[in-house]
Amino acid sequence: MQKLSEQNYIHQLSIDCVIFGYFNKQLKVLISKLNFKGDFWALPSGFVFQDEDIDKAVERILQDRTAIKDIYLEQFYIFGKASRNSANFLNHLIELNQEKLGENRHNMKEYDWFTKRFVSVGYYALVDIGKVIPQKNDLDETIEWYNINDLPPMIMDHNAIVMKALDTLRRNLDEKLSAFNLLPDKFTMKEVQELYETIYDKPFVRTNFQKKILEFNVLERLEKKITGAANKAPYLYRFEK
Amino acid sequence: MQKLSEQNYIHQLSIDCVIFGYFNKQLKVLISKLNFKGDFWALPSGFVFQDEDIDKAVERILQDRTAIKDIYLEQFYIFGKASRNSANFLNHLIELNQEKLGENRHNMKEYDWFTKRFVSVGYYALVDIGKVIPQKNDLDETIEWYNINDLPPMIMDHNAIVMKALDTLRRNLDEKLSAFNLLPDKFTMKEVQELYETIYDKPFVRTNFQKKILEFNVLERLEKKITGAANKAPYLYRFEK
Repeated sequence: MQKLSEQNYIHQLSIDCVIFGYFNKQLKVLISKLNFKGDFWALPSGFVFQDEDIDKAVERILQDRTAIKDIYLEQFYIFGKASRNSANFLNHLIELNQEKLGENRHNMKEYDWFTKRFVSVGYYALVDIGKVIPQKNDLDETIEWYNINDLPPMIMDHNAIVMKALDTLRRNLDEKLSAFNLLPDKFTMKEVQELYETIYDKPFVRTNFQKKILEFNVLERLEKKITGAANKAPYLYRFEK
Repeated sequence: MQKLSEQNYIHQLSIDCVIFGYFNKQLKVLISKLNFKGDFWALPSGFVFQDEDIDKAVERILQDRTAIKDIYLEQFYIFGKASRNSANFLNHLIELNQEKLGENRHNMKEYDWFTKRFVSVGYYALVDIGKVIPQKNDLDETIEWYNINDLPPMIMDHNAIVMKALDTLRRNLDEKLSAFNLLPDKFTMKEVQELYETIYDKPFVRTNFQKKILEFNVLERLEKKITGAANKAPYLYRFEK
């Protein structure tokens, strides 16, 4: 677990991760609730060590929070407004948590670097939700999946970061064929269509959709799914990465 | 002109600009040659002031180097390798330019911040080459347009940055319809096709290409171009931004 007092990070540079999962025809995002009075929610975030590639930092942060490796990820935007700092939310948090923080207030100096302006690199990750075991860190009360249509109000610009990630995911989907990373290892064509309909929030015509997906030539057709009458059972597919 | 000794920048964060122009069926990039012995070429680059939005910093840098405003630009990637610093090229430059730098060597301390690892935000810009007046800064011997197929060897990872920008430009072109920013205000359909063929480095079938471009519904058809026989003259178009 990273320590906020750590001085070996690149200052004024942070990473915010939008971790997308998919379950029960819902697109979900992994979000922490901070272990302080006042209902503070936040995206999994972190910093970059001086001797660490940014990509490696993101892999480290994602692994710390999901307990899985080799996660599909995309850098999608740099959030670089001059007004982007945590001073407001930290002041609010400190005010509400004076009792808890009281005796440590004289140690707050070491967190000064953390209240400066931060440029944040946004990454989104696509995970098989069934494989993730969400990991709290020392600052978290909980870390849970939230439906993207029902996100809590997060600190700073984290809600806007999620929307920008969703925009980019939609734009990239056809070209990068990355959506399959949200599915379990084997899936039916109906499940692929439901996933696309969920991400784009609109229906597709079944025959056209199947044709388009199969033309991408990235799916391997496996045995039939064994449920009920064998003839009517749908085929299972696997994504050839 | 920005000063490298300026301490009011965000440290370890730089901006590299790939400024694309188009002329004579060639895609071109604006590149400086540094005013030192040793043939050092570089992309127009700069830093972000503490109180400045990154987008504004890019606009400032682009305007400083092109003498035009309201330039079409896209953030396309963050270059974040831990090994990314200017120490090698600076040492090489200093070694070759001892005579010139000799008496100022004791002042080099103030440039220490500049030799650290830098995370660079890559932006590409699309300009009407006929409107740009390339502007040297204090470190430049020249600033000129180079054919993208014939770039000089630049410092650090600047050649790789251009290639990544070109990749992104190609991927974005259909969706963002930004290519028209490379043309003068009025152009023929043939000129549009030549531009697309240059960017993608492959030919398109005329009838299909025209149909596709017109379907985007972003071109206004103007009077005919007055050259030779009026009947055979092509229509001129204008991009409706």
